[in-house]
Amino acid sequence: MKNSHVTQDTDPLLYDGHKRYHPGLSVDCVIFGFHDNQLKVLLLKMSHTDQRWALPGGFVLKDEDVESAAHHVLQSRTGLDNIFLRQFYLFGEVERSDRELNRKMLQGRGVDPHEDHWLLQRFITIGYYALVDFTKALPRPDELSDACDWWDFHNLPPLMMDHARILQKALEALRQQLNREPIGYNLLPEKFTMPELQKLYETILGKTLDRRNFQRKMLAYGILERLNERRSGGAHKAPYLYRFDLASYHKALEEGFSGGW
Amino acid sequence: MKNSHVTQDTDPLLYDGHKRYHPGLSVDCVIFGFHDNQLKVLLLKMSHTDQRWALPGGFVLKDEDVESAAHHVLQSRTGLDNIFLRQFYLFGEVERSDRELNRKMLQGRGVDPHEDHWLLQRFITIGYYALVDFTKALPRPDELSDACDWWDFHNLPPLMMDHARILQKALEALRQQLNREPIGYNLLPEKFTMPELQKLYETILGKTLDRRNFQRKMLAYGILERLNERRSGGAHKAPYLYRFDLASYHKALEEGFSGGW
Repeated sequence: MKNSHVTQDTDPLLYDGHKRYHPGLSVDCVIFGFHDNQLKVLLLKMSHTDQRWALPGGFVLKDEDVESAAHHVLQSRTGLDNIFLRQFYLFGEVERSDRELNRKMLQGRGVDPHEDHWLLQRFITIGYYALVDFTKALPRPDELSDACDWWDFHNLPPLMMDHARILQKALEALRQQLNREPIGYNLLPEKFTMPELQKLYETILGKTLDRRNFQRKMLAYGILERLNERRSGGAHKAPYLYRFDLASYHKALEEGFSGGW
Repeated sequence: MKNSHVTQDTDPLLYDGHKRYHPGLSVDCVIFGFHDNQLKVLLLKMSHTDQRWALPGGFVLKDEDVESAAHHVLQSRTGLDNIFLRQFYLFGEVERSDRELNRKMLQGRGVDPHEDHWLLQRFITIGYYALVDFTKALPRPDELSDACDWWDFHNLPPLMMDHARILQKALEALRQQLNREPIGYNLLPEKFTMPELQKLYETILGKTLDRRNFQRKMLAYGILERLNERRSGGAHKAPYLYRFDLASYHKALEEGFSGGW
């Protein structure tokens, strides 16, 4: 869709980026969700790029902390605030920049960019991953995309640039963090059962876990509150519902979660 | 020391940086060593900064991968190649840049910089940590510093900018990595005893470890080769020497080190 109403005033992405943004730097967010026993990621279908999909991303204002820019991306794409967000890796290879792709996107929007257009320069990107409650996120495309959808992490569409690698690195970082800190609850609704939590761990880690060991280890963290409610409707004996307890979590975090030396 | 021989051709740091380097980006290296049972870091005494010390750092050429730039810093400051080097965090706060400090450094070298001088802009920095064999490194100052010395991590001199925070983050990253992967041997000479390895772990982790558990866990990694040699000269029974076995290490890495879920 050609946008002929673009003006210098209204579209900094096309014209004024070099004045507004920290040069040569983008942020990309891997936004994880969990639904139907699948690990999901939120992707944007980029306009004018042959049906390529991309991670939600953005740029960093000259007077903005990098982390704030990541928060802004997350908030803009999901409508959610106060989200678990972690920086995980800077992608700094020369060859990751794709001038031709950016040129196409600009031309698709009616701009024939000069060689020194800010979007045609080399970009490094800093990756953040976020864990959101799938049921609460409201996916919204940005100004460079036609759609914003959840995809099964293990069944992704064609991705642009090095975004497949960024996704893989994010999963590794999530797995490592899960071994250090019980952060999985961020992906679940407020109340959940132990089997649901175990399924989430198994999906992220890509392996099955022993039920009893899982429950023992998870309860040993001391961060879950068992409610006087059960999940009804299943074929099995109805399991108890749990709720994550923030106060206990902060206490446990200070003392250091077990594991390791 | 005022350098009156600086010319545009010979000193890109002072003049041509905006043409040579990726804008607004630096790399900082936390180079760890181990000596006299102390965790050491290599620091530079910066010229014209009131005796401030700094992490070895540098800039990234426009056609250079960010990681290569980090390798280059490491090689230039220690003379060592093929070093264990890991990216750990991007420091992206607006307020971390220190225009006045950079202005002083430039003035100290006889340059009265224009407001849009490239070194007076905002810089983000990507932190790498390296583990080196203290006995093999040959510390060398760079063109902005008067000295390059090892310091005890727990007894540091006054540091410039946010370098104290970068050091702290690097230690956290090293501790986490040590729980995931037995990388400590990088800090030791080729041959070492189990008590020496344990002391290294205790120093990094900041706590004492049980001798038998340590030995059991360390040997279980299957990456150490016990030699038919003992360390002599100590008061106790002479302990065996071990050597790190690279082939076993790669095998263990593929299979995943134990620990975690």
